[in-house]
Amino acid sequence: MTKQQKSRLSIGVDYGTNSVRAVVVDTADGSEVGSSVFNYPSGTAGVIVDPKDPHLARQNPADYIEGFYQSVGGAVRAARKRKGFSPEAVVGIGIDTTGSTPLPVDRQGRPLALRPEFRRNPAAHAWLWKDHTSYAEAAEISDLARRCGEPYLAKCGGVYSSEWFWSKLLHCKRTAPRVFEAAYSWVELADFVPAFVTGRTDPDTLPRGICAAGHKAMYHESWGGLPSADFLAQLDPDLPRIREHYATPAQTSDRPAGRLAAEVAARVGLPEGVPVAVGAFDAHMGAVGAGIKPGRLVKIIGTSTCDMLVAPGEAQLPDVPGLCGIVPGSIIPGMYGLEAGQSAVGDIFHWFVRYLAPAEYTRNGDPHERLSRDAAKLRPGESGLLALDWNNGNRTILVDPLLTGLLVGQTLHTTAAEVYRALIEATAFGALRIINRFEEYGLKVDEVVNCGGIAEKNPLVMQIYADVCNRPMKISRAPQTCALGAAVFGAVVGGAYPDVAKAQRRMTGVKPEVYRPNKAAAQIYAELYRLYCLLHDAFGLPGAGAAGAGGDASGPASGGSGGALYSVMKSLIALRDRVRSR
Amino acid sequence: MTKQQKSRLSIGVDYGTNSVRAVVVDTADGSEVGSSVFNYPSGTAGVIVDPKDPHLARQNPADYIEGFYQSVGGAVRAARKRKGFSPEAVVGIGIDTTGSTPLPVDRQGRPLALRPEFRRNPAAHAWLWKDHTSYAEAAEISDLARRCGEPYLAKCGGVYSSEWFWSKLLHCKRTAPRVFEAAYSWVELADFVPAFVTGRTDPDTLPRGICAAGHKAMYHESWGGLPSADFLAQLDPDLPRIREHYATPAQTSDRPAGRLAAEVAARVGLPEGVPVAVGAFDAHMGAVGAGIKPGRLVKIIGTSTCDMLVAPGEAQLPDVPGLCGIVPGSIIPGMYGLEAGQSAVGDIFHWFVRYLAPAEYTRNGDPHERLSRDAAKLRPGESGLLALDWNNGNRTILVDPLLTGLLVGQTLHTTAAEVYRALIEATAFGALRIINRFEEYGLKVDEVVNCGGIAEKNPLVMQIYADVCNRPMKISRAPQTCALGAAVFGAVVGGAYPDVAKAQRRMTGVKPEVYRPNKAAAQIYAELYRLYCLLHDAFGLPGAGAAGAGGDASGPASGGSGGALYSVMKSLIALRDRVRSR
Repeated sequence: MTKQQKSRLSIGVDYGTNSVRAVVVDTADGSEVGSSVFNYPSGTAGVIVDPKDPHLARQNPADYIEGFYQSVGGAVRAARKRKGFSPEAVVGIGIDTTGSTPLPVDRQGRPLALRPEFRRNPAAHAWLWKDHTSYAEAAEISDLARRCGEPYLAKCGGVYSSEWFWSKLLHCKRTAPRVFEAAYSWVELADFVPAFVTGRTDPDTLPRGICAAGHKAMYHESWGGLPSADFLAQLDPDLPRIREHYATPAQTSDRPAGRLAAEVAARVGLPEGVPVAVGAFDAHMGAVGAGIKPGRLVKIIGTSTCDMLVAPGEAQLPDVPGLCGIVPGSIIPGMYGLEAGQSAVGDIFHWFVRYLAPAEYTRNGDPHERLSRDAAKLRPGESGLLALDWNNGNRTILVDPLLTGLLVGQTLHTTAAEVYRALIEATAFGALRIINRFEEYGLKVDEVVNCGGIAEKNPLVMQIYADVCNRPMKISRAPQTCALGAAVFGAVVGGAYPDVAKAQRRMTGVKPEVYRPNKAAAQIYAELYRLYCLLHDAFGLPGAGAAGAGGDASGPASGGSGGALYSVMKSLIALRDRVRSR
Repeated sequence: MTKQQKSRLSIGVDYGTNSVRAVVVDTADGSEVGSSVFNYPSGTAGVIVDPKDPHLARQNPADYIEGFYQSVGGAVRAARKRKGFSPEAVVGIGIDTTGSTPLPVDRQGRPLALRPEFRRNPAAHAWLWKDHTSYAEAAEISDLARRCGEPYLAKCGGVYSSEWFWSKLLHCKRTAPRVFEAAYSWVELADFVPAFVTGRTDPDTLPRGICAAGHKAMYHESWGGLPSADFLAQLDPDLPRIREHYATPAQTSDRPAGRLAAEVAARVGLPEGVPVAVGAFDAHMGAVGAGIKPGRLVKIIGTSTCDMLVAPGEAQLPDVPGLCGIVPGSIIPGMYGLEAGQSAVGDIFHWFVRYLAPAEYTRNGDPHERLSRDAAKLRPGESGLLALDWNNGNRTILVDPLLTGLLVGQTLHTTAAEVYRALIEATAFGALRIINRFEEYGLKVDEVVNCGGIAEKNPLVMQIYADVCNRPMKISRAPQTCALGAAVFGAVVGGAYPDVAKAQRRMTGVKPEVYRPNKAAAQIYAELYRLYCLLHDAFGLPGAGAAGAGGDASGPASGGSGGALYSVMKSLIALRDRVRSR
């Protein structure tokens, strides 16, 4: 077939929390030619956990390496079934991963975990994004930066997270000094995979992506790259050593990290030398795959969410309190990338199904489907329930992992479907709080495009989001938006397009079906959102006296709630009775 | 057998929500000689409900009549199997019932529901204690009493309830005027049964018990008995008529209501003329059956709880805010009877099992047993959870049905057993708040005796109560404490003892096994109780400005909580991590 023979292909590889997926796409329109998924074999669904410490979440670097071979090899084999497919048509590869997921490596850039002496040591493995063992170190880093008047927190919402690079390194130094000593450097997973597959693993020279560096390692050109050696030394005298073995300046993903090494190429059925883009995080490349541009918020809804926005490079951006990061070029080169997000969304629904859903929902079929079916029969406000979506802490706007879930409004008749719906609504209120935070700081949200499994599969969730946010909810066209985004970068480094925006225009898009807000539902949700904010501020912000006094992550929406909570149960009951009597 | 022939027996009859139970006991030591249970045949488990109105709960008076014949007759037949039993040895009968459960009667004292024209009219049946159709009328009565400066609310915690006598009558007048018109008077179930079985059913003369009158009909000698005709007329011009056909003064249960009528005696196999005590509520006679005396709190733990205390008659009692009632002679003649309680305890556990317990707990065996087994493995504070026990509102100390449950501290790993334990703990904190309220007003609680199914069957609940309250928890010796209490009154009216206290000393007691507080657990629970009180006051009391300003049910423990809630999640996490790291 002439068309197929002429088409140029790109490969996107998306390293998720439990599996890695590769897609081969046509650079002409982003359509999928072949794909394959590899589930990480180690731990529980790929995650090494510790029954004694719920904060711990690690991964086996061997899974990443095997995952590249299996997923890319599988996608290429799948593509081969198409008439006219030729591996030579693959012009480039893009790679995205979870993050911050740093792993300790030796002088050659080999993961320490692959050495026999460290094979059973969780500290020598990759520290998965959702590992929260380092919360004390995160607080210490935030404190020190504030105390020293360092600007490092300005671009990450005013608070350094326990999920991030330096917190994890510092915690490793303190709790597993032998591992820390053996580590020549630490590499983010997003940098490790491109380095490994291109053979450029020397920690001193392997390209570091601006996305991971800027969002997680406090890298910013305005203060000369990474935090100063002085600053790091105050945390621990050994930390500056890691800084020395971290090549700067950090790179955007329209640049190649290198070319596919011969032995890797052979194992996946591709020609040697295919260009591989500098890696970035899944959410950032996902945003590209969903067609992000100024004014278009991309929500990537999975176990947690990432809410991504870009602003033109010439804009004067304020430091928005509570945002996870504002990093030039982290999403689209030449624009500011802004990242917000919720620490748990799908994870909350999964938690409910796993631990609290009764047999009638778990006996047959998909519990989520069955619960959603019953929850969809309920009207907004009818259950009298209200929840906070903090089972895994609050990333935006509070930047606080030491928060928990809350459910209020239970009676003796409250059903599982009602609780399930309240949990969905809670995540929607959290989403709205983020949109409002962007807009409070002048970053207009004209349009919302959703992607990820939940956006694809659960119309109830999307309708509730539309009703709660009182905005249309669009869905990204590609089912695998992150992998497609990675493929966009593959197309750019492969020369199929001169820049990311031009590639996006051809390779990405939204579905024709849009979830539009229901007016009556939106009105009720406006009342519930007011109550949500009461709970949010009462449990999430330090006392009214301190709020807004500077230094905290609260911003303009903060305020005291003394006495106001008395109205919460009353208002929920009144609303419930009003809705039921209609 | 000489001993048996000489023994004097008493019968206690206990009218519960779903069934009636009769026991024949030896007055010498309270030991059971025979017993029998009759399940009410009408409605759903004895309760007539309305699918369109969840507030409605009625009962068929025919069930009460048949219930006496069957339960007492059955208990006597069971006793006959004992060697030497003789019906002539039965010296008296005591009767307790649920309440406030009033029923409309005609001029002869016959229940209207037995007439053909009313047989299908729920308003003509008995209005079961948990019927909440009259909530608007309850508010109206409270408002009127406050507005007129009437003292009627002083002895019932400052709020008149939708469960009580006048609320129900007023609601009947307004929604079923034909029934109200046909009613010559209304009689509490606790008065109806003794009247019926003694043949003294004339509403103008049948003895009214002080327990029902004082706790539910605003009867108090200090204001001349029932509320004034003027007051009632302001609610409805027809209400004073009921007052006229209500014999006063109300009587204590050490007095006979009459003697067993010949035709009733014949049907149950007893001699004619056995004295029958004036009736009282189950919780009050249950307290007697558990050996209540000054300083000894009796907790009757079932779907809800009643917490009963007595104080010497010569004491100057304060009006304790939030108590359901303070009535002279309602428990033990000559002493003040004080009633407090929690709106739901067992009901909360049942709600969880019915709606939220996963299959692993509900598949086989008793879910409560299985959940308790796993919950018992947890250490206090370990789950990081904290709940409010308000799924059915709060009876004491807030006297507010418009409150709901709350759960805080959920993570992505929170299990069903953890939630179940948190719910148990919440009811324990609610129990402690009641004990503290008594003591704040100078009513010392030296000892706690528990009875009811949960106290009997769930050691985990009792141990948690001991640890939370930091007091030993004793269990009443008799498995059927309410029926035994009724039998105590049967023994007194039958002349086996000169007074209730003397009868109690011989007929009641506690089990040798006592749940003693664990010191370490009590320390952790003291911390959790402080957090519980923060939530309790924030959600349950009007704003700090209003609290304690008088008129509300808060009392000395009240206070503002502005900003303090921020500490709740933090403290729960810190406590959890401390406990887990031990």
